[in-house]
Amino acid sequence: MAQFVPAEPFDLVIFGGTGDLSQRKLLPALFHRDVDGQFSDDSRIFAVSRGELAAADFIAFVHDALRRQLADDEFDEATWQRFSQRLHYQRLDVTTPDGWDGLGAALASEPDHIRIFYLAMLPSLYGSTASNLARAGLTNARSRIVLEKPVGSDYASARAINDEVGCVFEENQVYRIDHYLGKETVQNLAALRFANSLFEPLWRHAAVDHVQITVAEDLGTGNRAEFYDRTGALRDMVQNHMLQLLCLVAMEPPISLSHEELRNEKIKVLKALRPITPDNVKQVTVRGQYTSGAVSGELVEGYQEELGQDQPSNTETFVAIKAEIDNWRWAETPFYLRTGKRLATKSSEIVLQFRPVGHSIFPKDSGELEPNRLVIRLQPNEGVQLSIVTKEPGPGGFRLRSLPLNLSFSDTYQVRYPDAYERLLMEVLRGNPALFMHREEVERAWEWIDGIIDSWQQSRMKTQNYVAGTWGPTDAVRLLDRDGREWRNPHDD
Amino acid sequence: MAQFVPAEPFDLVIFGGTGDLSQRKLLPALFHRDVDGQFSDDSRIFAVSRGELAAADFIAFVHDALRRQLADDEFDEATWQRFSQRLHYQRLDVTTPDGWDGLGAALASEPDHIRIFYLAMLPSLYGSTASNLARAGLTNARSRIVLEKPVGSDYASARAINDEVGCVFEENQVYRIDHYLGKETVQNLAALRFANSLFEPLWRHAAVDHVQITVAEDLGTGNRAEFYDRTGALRDMVQNHMLQLLCLVAMEPPISLSHEELRNEKIKVLKALRPITPDNVKQVTVRGQYTSGAVSGELVEGYQEELGQDQPSNTETFVAIKAEIDNWRWAETPFYLRTGKRLATKSSEIVLQFRPVGHSIFPKDSGELEPNRLVIRLQPNEGVQLSIVTKEPGPGGFRLRSLPLNLSFSDTYQVRYPDAYERLLMEVLRGNPALFMHREEVERAWEWIDGIIDSWQQSRMKTQNYVAGTWGPTDAVRLLDRDGREWRNPHDD
Repeated sequence: MAQFVPAEPFDLVIFGGTGDLSQRKLLPALFHRDVDGQFSDDSRIFAVSRGELAAADFIAFVHDALRRQLADDEFDEATWQRFSQRLHYQRLDVTTPDGWDGLGAALASEPDHIRIFYLAMLPSLYGSTASNLARAGLTNARSRIVLEKPVGSDYASARAINDEVGCVFEENQVYRIDHYLGKETVQNLAALRFANSLFEPLWRHAAVDHVQITVAEDLGTGNRAEFYDRTGALRDMVQNHMLQLLCLVAMEPPISLSHEELRNEKIKVLKALRPITPDNVKQVTVRGQYTSGAVSGELVEGYQEELGQDQPSNTETFVAIKAEIDNWRWAETPFYLRTGKRLATKSSEIVLQFRPVGHSIFPKDSGELEPNRLVIRLQPNEGVQLSIVTKEPGPGGFRLRSLPLNLSFSDTYQVRYPDAYERLLMEVLRGNPALFMHREEVERAWEWIDGIIDSWQQSRMKTQNYVAGTWGPTDAVRLLDRDGREWRNPHDD
Repeated sequence: MAQFVPAEPFDLVIFGGTGDLSQRKLLPALFHRDVDGQFSDDSRIFAVSRGELAAADFIAFVHDALRRQLADDEFDEATWQRFSQRLHYQRLDVTTPDGWDGLGAALASEPDHIRIFYLAMLPSLYGSTASNLARAGLTNARSRIVLEKPVGSDYASARAINDEVGCVFEENQVYRIDHYLGKETVQNLAALRFANSLFEPLWRHAAVDHVQITVAEDLGTGNRAEFYDRTGALRDMVQNHMLQLLCLVAMEPPISLSHEELRNEKIKVLKALRPITPDNVKQVTVRGQYTSGAVSGELVEGYQEELGQDQPSNTETFVAIKAEIDNWRWAETPFYLRTGKRLATKSSEIVLQFRPVGHSIFPKDSGELEPNRLVIRLQPNEGVQLSIVTKEPGPGGFRLRSLPLNLSFSDTYQVRYPDAYERLLMEVLRGNPALFMHREEVERAWEWIDGIIDSWQQSRMKTQNYVAGTWGPTDAVRLLDRDGREWRNPHDD
């Protein structure tokens, strides 16, 4: 393991600091990094929210959150003593320009600290919060702002947010988070592709038949049903996570891993995405919505029941898309995307399906020549699996069989696997925006997504039902079957 | 597993039937195939040798040999009852044309059986034995002859044997055995290369930096010292096993696995081997001879002591060669061969070392970008290992590390691993010569080997000492070091 280098002294201000994301992800991630000694002693963490909360109560609140989120052997009393010293609470209503003096005074006591404003709040408040930060005089050339996804709900709103934030912060001060980019296996994608001379010559249409990207959830919408109903799977998952994964798989080799180069290559992919139109939207997309069924042996409600509205909703809880990338590398090599709630299992993976062997030299009875497949598992059990065809041993005839070469990262590296937020927070502290989205990425992605939503509306495309606990509607199967292909479901081998 | 199909009824005649090879390999291999029901009830096995041996004594002799060679759970009493019925002993001096009537009469009783003559004897007797078989009227269009390696000791003697045998048997009736071709992993080489679209595009000079083939033995010459001293490592191992492995790695894809196609491709490789001349022999070959040392913690004698002659011997017990293949596929991709006795461990493997990544996009402190490597282990623990570079997990910087993707055939296929002779004998019984050497392969290989021996003699190249239990003389290290490369020793990772 690399030795940890402490970050420069910082003041991190979390807006929405007592909210769900802060409790579940940000505070535990910060604690873990403190355990490893990555923070200078005088670095501070401010939680901002509208509620009234005494200093001691806030400390107790964080303590409880950490004990809930961390395993017993992860919670270290000595670190907690140090960590709790960093914690400050600040009451503030970000929607008004008033009341920022308290925060201003607190920050002013350490003028040399890097200031990071983490916006864990509704995206509609991003613009005004940025403006108010500037108006209160809290920003400077060294401050950074972190925006949680989603940035906007379509191209226009994303652009408006980016413009408003852009009036206060330079683009390289803005860190748009997509936590998928902090996952180890996503990081490993770059290593696999560009640290191995083996893969890059094959990483193109001549060798790859198609790519599948699956992000499957077994959960339903739960108590987020109402919010979810205004969003749907396409906006919630495809616009950000899945298009980012697609970009990382599809991009040309950047000249370095610097954020400029990486983002430029991703933007090139987004520009090359073939627009989906009302003419072909029914051929290349599938919309689904779950009905009641069984997930992991438990009976669960359908989406409409969870939502509990009079009017039936036409929001998709599942979407599958055949995406085409119009460039030299990927001509005639579609990327099939699918994501959904209440699917058979929680699993995210990328599959590169290689083309079949051009000519078989083997006897007819030697069995099927299964094409090679590279599976990059993002969760659970992050790892890589390369299936290769071997000869079955034995003095019988020549029998072929496909076997997986397995590399489980968690089995191999016997270390605790850091959460995506730990890595991303450290990248913010270090001032490296390579793992965050440039505004043009966000906007280009929304453009393509808007095209799909418009096409759905124009062609009045309805969702198709699927039973909870299955792999989505039958049209998702047809989407690939039409091309003579099929989905690889996790645990297929 | 494939179902076993019984072979056609046969009579197998083993010349040298009570010898070492017969006891250690052939009889146990035949027994195993009988366990699996691959022989018709009336198929027979004749052991021929010069000694006087009563039928019952011969049966007892085979019984003892099997009990010595087979594990307790491999010896099956019911099969033994069936197997012992097949066994016949025939006294015969193959050097004279007389005394063949007994064998003739025995074979004549089953005129429809396929007749197989297995010559497990001195190669110098192959020609005369074939002639005598013909003279005694024992051969027909359906009979086959199996020749153990080595066929001759140089080009001229190999040619003479092939000519003499060729007067009696058509080329497709002659099965020249190299038991390496019966090993599962050697078989798997064909599957790896031609059943996977992944490897073939990379299997050439553009992607492969060089190839290493190591066949290491930990044993000394033992009681074969005198025989070995007339042979040496080059003739004993390189002319057959190692050049066969080289051919299988280097050959162009055959249009099928039929023996004609496979042999043609191998012959093309042998033709393309760049001849070694007195001018460069000292640069591209290394000769070694072991002195006393420790192998597996045991003190062992040097070669000269084992040999115990007055005159010091200049026979090589180790040889390393930089072989170049002058064709499009392998230009500037050398094949380094090495083999020796009393090396550090018993191990045979083929290593494809891929070229380094052309350009690193990673930060300078991310660690070495180790080039990919494919290791095909022939023994022990047959398997395949592909090393790939991954990112180390953790929120530190981008640290790269090479990790092996492992496929152990014996771990994967939980079946008994058949000996090479089992497979090869079955191929003879089925009449499939694909795994055997064509006369032209043998002769071309000798031509290249003769060129090395001539060059050694003309340039008076002496053997260099190496301590038993090491990886050979230091010149073997220099051979690669000069090219900026190094040997991969087994268990290096």
